Amino acid sequence: MIELFHAEPASNSLKVLLCLKEKGVDFKSRVVDIQAFEQHEPWFLEINPDGQVPALVHDGAVITESTVINEYLDHVFPEVPLRPLDALECARMRVFTKYVDEYFRPALSQIGWQLMIHTITDKLAPAEFEAKLARIPREEKREKWRISAAQGYTPEQMAAWRRTLEEGVGKAEAALARGPWLAGEHYSLADIAFFAMAANMPARFGDFMNETASPRVMDWHRRMHARPAVKAALAVPSPVKKAG
Amino acid sequence: MIELFHAEPASNSLKVLLCLKEKGVDFKSRVVDIQAFEQHEPWFLEINPDGQVPALVHDGAVITESTVINEYLDHVFPEVPLRPLDALECARMRVFTKYVDEYFRPALSQIGWQLMIHTITDKLAPAEFEAKLARIPREEKREKWRISAAQGYTPEQMAAWRRTLEEGVGKAEAALARGPWLAGEHYSLADIAFFAMAANMPARFGDFMNETASPRVMDWHRRMHARPAVKAALAVPSPVKKAG
Repeated sequence: MIELFHAEPASNSLKVLLCLKEKGVDFKSRVVDIQAFEQHEPWFLEINPDGQVPALVHDGAVITESTVINEYLDHVFPEVPLRPLDALECARMRVFTKYVDEYFRPALSQIGWQLMIHTITDKLAPAEFEAKLARIPREEKREKWRISAAQGYTPEQMAAWRRTLEEGVGKAEAALARGPWLAGEHYSLADIAFFAMAANMPARFGDFMNETASPRVMDWHRRMHARPAVKAALAVPSPVKKAG
Repeated sequence: MIELFHAEPASNSLKVLLCLKEKGVDFKSRVVDIQAFEQHEPWFLEINPDGQVPALVHDGAVITESTVINEYLDHVFPEVPLRPLDALECARMRVFTKYVDEYFRPALSQIGWQLMIHTITDKLAPAEFEAKLARIPREEKREKWRISAAQGYTPEQMAAWRRTLEEGVGKAEAALARGPWLAGEHYSLADIAFFAMAANMPARFGDFMNETASPRVMDWHRRMHARPAVKAALAVPSPVKKAG
């Protein structure tokens, strides 16, 4: 019995939804309303003390961290393999998923957060916001929320994160020169990790993600959107409204 | 034929040395003098464009990122397995290695860097230092070096990183309540990753890493130091002198 605690089908939540749908694994969808800070409520902290979605519960055992969850799912449901059997291609996959976790996703998240935090915080009185903040387990995250909600990050910081996104698209473009998928010959968790972040990026970052600057990435992006599992993952119901 | 480009046996370089020695894999040791900024020289950037050690070359193929390298080594040299066969224990291993990469090691690195950068930069004229900086591929790292060498990080930032280290030791203590090793029953890449950072920590951070605060971690630390492979990895020759 698999339960997935997740937010709307985007970012790290989408990453695990894409893996489950690709593998055709049945699961119970448990939506956590992150715009209402539900991930920091006591009931959820009992599941994941880090206060982060997604979290997978498999026969009572909790697995956290979307990248680890997807490796776990490939371990226990190997029928549709999403890790290349070739050791070198598998290492390329992991270098890519690690890059997404450590650079690409944080940059995208910082930019998105700055743009949307006021649609969340403007509904709250200052004392209410402080109370919500106080429940965030990690100090670094409390700080990120506080800065975004108050003065906001500087244009220089926002520009640096945009450069990281452009760099990431460049890395994907280079990787796709080697084969049809990001790790090489086989569709893998690298494609899933990058797409979970990049699904809507051409519309938002068309200045560097377009047919001229990154033609292979744009072709890959269309092939991704055409996959039935990708359509199914993006269609997973979520009551959470997007900002803007 | 395996070549490992590495710095002194500490941190991420030690992580891969521990894995190779545990597996008894023969390799050619290629020392990169990071205190002389050799990792940013053109000859090394041809091997790893990110300008980071360690980098493994296996039959001509380059594998980067110490965590990925160790998973790769376990894939191609499975005789001494360092990833638990049990999927849940393997996921615990990856949550731990990921935490070391994303929180624990950066905190330790920032503290160490601030303490030792002047033993490196004081030997250089400002223009020489700027020239060295300009060759660092990643903007975030250039910024880290620049701040450490100039005003230094604030006491608040240093204190926050110390809290992260204390948190990490607490996580290890909690993990070791579950079994003899960090992932559970089996010695794994989690023990290797954490020890690569923690080898000298009791002497430097005895206020929170000691027999009272973290008795299981101290016992684990002794068991680690007693392993022949750990002794062999720590004894790998390196011309690089430690600061202080």
